[in-house]
Amino acid sequence: MILHIAQFTWKPEVTAADVDALTTALEQMAAQIPQILSYRAAANLRVRPSTTDYACAAIVADADDLAAYLDHPLHKAVYDQHLGRMVAERAAAQLPIESGSFA
Amino acid sequence: MILHIAQFTWKPEVTAADVDALTTALEQMAAQIPQILSYRAAANLRVRPSTTDYACAAIVADADDLAAYLDHPLHKAVYDQHLGRMVAERAAAQLPIESGSFA
Repeated sequence: MILHIAQFTWKPEVTAADVDALTTALEQMAAQIPQILSYRAAANLRVRPSTTDYACAAIVADADDLAAYLDHPLHKAVYDQHLGRMVAERAAAQLPIESGSFA
Repeated sequence: MILHIAQFTWKPEVTAADVDALTTALEQMAAQIPQILSYRAAANLRVRPSTTDYACAAIVADADDLAAYLDHPLHKAVYDQHLGRMVAERAAAQLPIESGSFA
């Protein structure tokens, strides 16, 4: 299995309403992409100081399912309608995890 | 519960042996810090192009437990003996997750 993580820093003009709309769109997207086994998208809690404003985490079965998710029209639509104009910086990575080992 | 994620980009001089030693140290650390409920540290699989070389993900119960982990002497020791000299860039974030919802 793969844990996909993405961290975002927003452009200065991004508002709380933009972020709420993004979260709603991402959660609706995740619910409709079967390859996404677990999903979470939210503003960084900033328990510690950080330049990251927002993060997403998804668990998928393998690299093919990750591609199906990242290349899915619904994912592209979220970029076109929300993320594309919000993101100043993005960093993403994939970690190999064992099924059921990460909960 | 909190999903803590951290992404690292290495300095040019970091070797595969450095990364292996780091992973061993992080896994030993995680096994000895009770507040860490789930943990994974590994080189970025780079299923997609990325500047991130390495990532860590940990699940903890709450912000206090995250602080206990991040401020733990064993965590500090990993920085002193490994990460401190390896890291060019670091981005970390915390996501709120529901218990059992992320596996």
